[in-house]
Amino acid sequence: MTFRTNLRLALDGQHPRLGGSVEFALLALIVVSAIGMGVETLTGLPPGIYAFFGALEVFVVTAFALEYGLRLWVSDQPLRYARSFYGIIDLVSFLPTLVGILLTGSALDGRAMRTLRLFRLLRLLKVVRYANAAERLGEAWRLVREEVIVFGLAALIVLYVCALIIYQFENEAQPEAFSSVFSAMWWAAVTLTTVGYGDIYPITAMGRIFTVVMLFVALGIIAIPTGLVASAMSELRRRKTANDRTSSPHEINPEPPTRAS
Amino acid sequence: MTFRTNLRLALDGQHPRLGGSVEFALLALIVVSAIGMGVETLTGLPPGIYAFFGALEVFVVTAFALEYGLRLWVSDQPLRYARSFYGIIDLVSFLPTLVGILLTGSALDGRAMRTLRLFRLLRLLKVVRYANAAERLGEAWRLVREEVIVFGLAALIVLYVCALIIYQFENEAQPEAFSSVFSAMWWAAVTLTTVGYGDIYPITAMGRIFTVVMLFVALGIIAIPTGLVASAMSELRRRKTANDRTSSPHEINPEPPTRAS
Amino acid sequence: MTFRTNLRLALDGQHPRLGGSVEFALLALIVVSAIGMGVETLTGLPPGIYAFFGALEVFVVTAFALEYGLRLWVSDQPLRYARSFYGIIDLVSFLPTLVGILLTGSALDGRAMRTLRLFRLLRLLKVVRYANAAERLGEAWRLVREEVIVFGLAALIVLYVCALIIYQFENEAQPEAFSSVFSAMWWAAVTLTTVGYGDIYPITAMGRIFTVVMLFVALGIIAIPTGLVASAMSELRRRKTANDRTSSPHEINPEPPTRAS
Amino acid sequence: MTFRTNLRLALDGQHPRLGGSVEFALLALIVVSAIGMGVETLTGLPPGIYAFFGALEVFVVTAFALEYGLRLWVSDQPLRYARSFYGIIDLVSFLPTLVGILLTGSALDGRAMRTLRLFRLLRLLKVVRYANAAERLGEAWRLVREEVIVFGLAALIVLYVCALIIYQFENEAQPEAFSSVFSAMWWAAVTLTTVGYGDIYPITAMGRIFTVVMLFVALGIIAIPTGLVASAMSELRRRKTANDRTSSPHEINPEPPTRAS
Repeated sequence: MTFRTNLRLALDGQHPRLGGSVEFALLALIVVSAIGMGVETLTGLPPGIYAFFGALEVFVVTAFALEYGLRLWVSDQPLRYARSFYGIIDLVSFLPTLVGILLTGSALDGRAMRTLRLFRLLRLLKVVRYANAAERLGEAWRLVREEVIVFGLAALIVLYVCALIIYQFENEAQPEAFSSVFSAMWWAAVTLTTVGYGDIYPITAMGRIFTVVMLFVALGIIAIPTGLVASAMSELRRRKTANDRTSSPHEINPEPPTRAS
Repeated sequence: MTFRTNLRLALDGQHPRLGGSVEFALLALIVVSAIGMGVETLTGLPPGIYAFFGALEVFVVTAFALEYGLRLWVSDQPLRYARSFYGIIDLVSFLPTLVGILLTGSALDGRAMRTLRLFRLLRLLKVVRYANAAERLGEAWRLVREEVIVFGLAALIVLYVCALIIYQFENEAQPEAFSSVFSAMWWAAVTLTTVGYGDIYPITAMGRIFTVVMLFVALGIIAIPTGLVASAMSELRRRKTANDRTSSPHEINPEPPTRAS
Repeated sequence: MTFRTNLRLALDGQHPRLGGSVEFALLALIVVSAIGMGVETLTGLPPGIYAFFGALEVFVVTAFALEYGLRLWVSDQPLRYARSFYGIIDLVSFLPTLVGILLTGSALDGRAMRTLRLFRLLRLLKVVRYANAAERLGEAWRLVREEVIVFGLAALIVLYVCALIIYQFENEAQPEAFSSVFSAMWWAAVTLTTVGYGDIYPITAMGRIFTVVMLFVALGIIAIPTGLVASAMSELRRRKTANDRTSSPHEINPEPPTRAS
Repeated sequence: MTFRTNLRLALDGQHPRLGGSVEFALLALIVVSAIGMGVETLTGLPPGIYAFFGALEVFVVTAFALEYGLRLWVSDQPLRYARSFYGIIDLVSFLPTLVGILLTGSALDGRAMRTLRLFRLLRLLKVVRYANAAERLGEAWRLVREEVIVFGLAALIVLYVCALIIYQFENEAQPEAFSSVFSAMWWAAVTLTTVGYGDIYPITAMGRIFTVVMLFVALGIIAIPTGLVASAMSELRRRKTANDRTSSPHEINPEPPTRAS
């Protein structure tokens, strides 16, 4: 077995001796990197901590760049990998930060770096590669995809129309809070999801009447997709249980008891 | 084929050559008009934008008036169209704005115009004509209509009675916030939908105890219709799946009706 | 037929000529009385309105007192009626207000009257007599009564324990907001129902961590009864549909219990 | 029968004469202790009350210590009891408070006592021993455990990632409200559970857009476990009903599709 073949198996977690250890190390890097992003937001820690996470950042970026290069090298069709879903995720997980580090010459200081921070969050997408556990969620999603999309679009239209209406009622009374249709959409989203921060709410009689009607009518539209996903999930569970039971021949299935004469 | 027959087919989206293009153009007008209403609420844009949307408004109104006139003309029973659901929507989608424009001589300035803005929102109702996708929602609605109406009425009565009760408890302590049964109903609606803006809430011990009891009892009444619609939707989906399966003759239906011999 | 028999039939809505008209008149009195309670809370109306509703109050009380007396007279077992559920409701619907009017000599003025206002709300309970439409809700209730009571008790215990815990965390930091276990229970109820007015919330790190854990764990306990009622309702609907279908002999029941021969 | 055997039966509620009375007394002690913890938070009561609950505290702790000692003595395998779930609960229900009382020499005063108060809450865990009613909840839990854990983990990850993202958008605009990833996680938890106190919310355009997207996408993930538990509960109810029916031999099972030969 050549070194290239060995490497390919190791990266895919199928190496006879290494097993999933390379995969595990890469996953650990993602988790450490995510923790690092959180720690950097804390103030008042000893400076050594920030320096440590700055160095860690350089290490993580280097590791992911190396991983990307190696994956390109071991692949029989490098272009196909580069254009695949995972290939793009692997690229954006390190490229923007790498560019930032090379341009500013340091890991975490500088104004340009601040903007690049957001791109570092894309790195978390790499975790999708390891999310076998999410499989059943995906199955449920396929069951209800169509309805959820229809309701998602409906929710967007409802948001926009509700915003246009409340703007007409409230803009004159509260020109600052309801300054444009965007503020009104923010209000509509916060209200229809029942979060209700209280930073913006109607005060005119017409605006309040409309809000009550809207809540009672539109809450349904927004709450339905959740119900659909949940019912699909429990249906999947029931099916799985049924399959598990029918596979054992002598047990009587609780929901298809049949007595042939 | 006469010009009138051609026109009728074009308006109904069944013209042999034009196909759905007239329908599509009318739908595009509605969408553009809705976007325009949103843009007008923004401040600080260059004046040209407002002038453009003022002109667009005139164009849209003219187009819808023309559409209405043509539909009347091509119809074999113009009165029946005029009194139908779609006919009334088509009329209110342009008439108030048209009257406003003719009276003030301008499209978007003037105080009278401000009031007419609300009527422009009625224009969005025209989109119903194209909402084939909402069909399954309608089916689900028919399944649960009765319960939803019963619960809707119950919700209204609950709102009113809760408002009367909280008013007795809170009016003396907060004469401004709970100034009348209308403020109290606003409070009840915002609380029972769990939005809870925080602009108005009970502060007396009795008011708070009542609020807690009310929330635990009445939340159910208000949340139930949503659950009903969701379960009806998933039932429809299951039925549809069952139908798809029974159409293939050799497959066993998962919830199978059986006739005993 | 004696006058007493006639009267009894009229009160029960089974008189051959009067039909449900007496029942309807009594129901109308309840509704008018409820509207009156709302109107009284409005300020700035012409004094005639208040005088009118004051007189109406006297009339409603007199009418309900008369109804109670007549029901006692026409009943073969007056004591049994007086001790029945409806008898007690009929009594409390007028007695406290009647006592108040007799003591103060006026219908709505006076300090004593203010306290009696709450008792007038009991009058709305009379509407239960006419609520045939609520029958199916009652059926659903019987299906899930046991679980709802268990969860209701669990919710109360959860509220109390959460209040005790948050009090320990927040009392020192916010001695006014979390002044006692009662304030803390108010906080717990407003938070667990996700209303979140924002009048009282944790600010310490431990209090916030506990709040997040509490929300994720306890939301389930409180949201479950709603789900139970909704699923029971939809089960009832399904059963009713099944019954409607089996009654037509040649149609195949979609979920049909069959006995093989 | 020896005294030791008598005692063991009494503690287990199986004594021929005492029956469940010892169990009942211990349960009453827990409830009284819980009420005491609530009363202590009230201010302005006569000092006798506080003294009474101080004495009660000593009594409760002594009683639970005695119970623990007796249970150890009557057990055939004292070590096994001491290491069991109930044994640990029994120990922590009195030990910290006992240590506190012995150290400070008084029941409820002193600074050290304040910290020990939290441990007293652990005493409430003893109630689990008597919660037979919670059995069906446990059954439902076993049905959906797997999904709930997956979604619980997903919710935690969603919280953390949302907090990292909103921090990037809002920290510059509101350095005090979004001071670190912890504040941001508090915001994410309060928002995703739709509590929305209004103590912290996004004000930048990007932050608001992200919040709306997050709410619509992530609400589902957090609301699903509740739906799962509810559907499992109603499935259990249906099964129980089915069992009750099948036990009567001549009745037809409500959901049994059968294939006749």
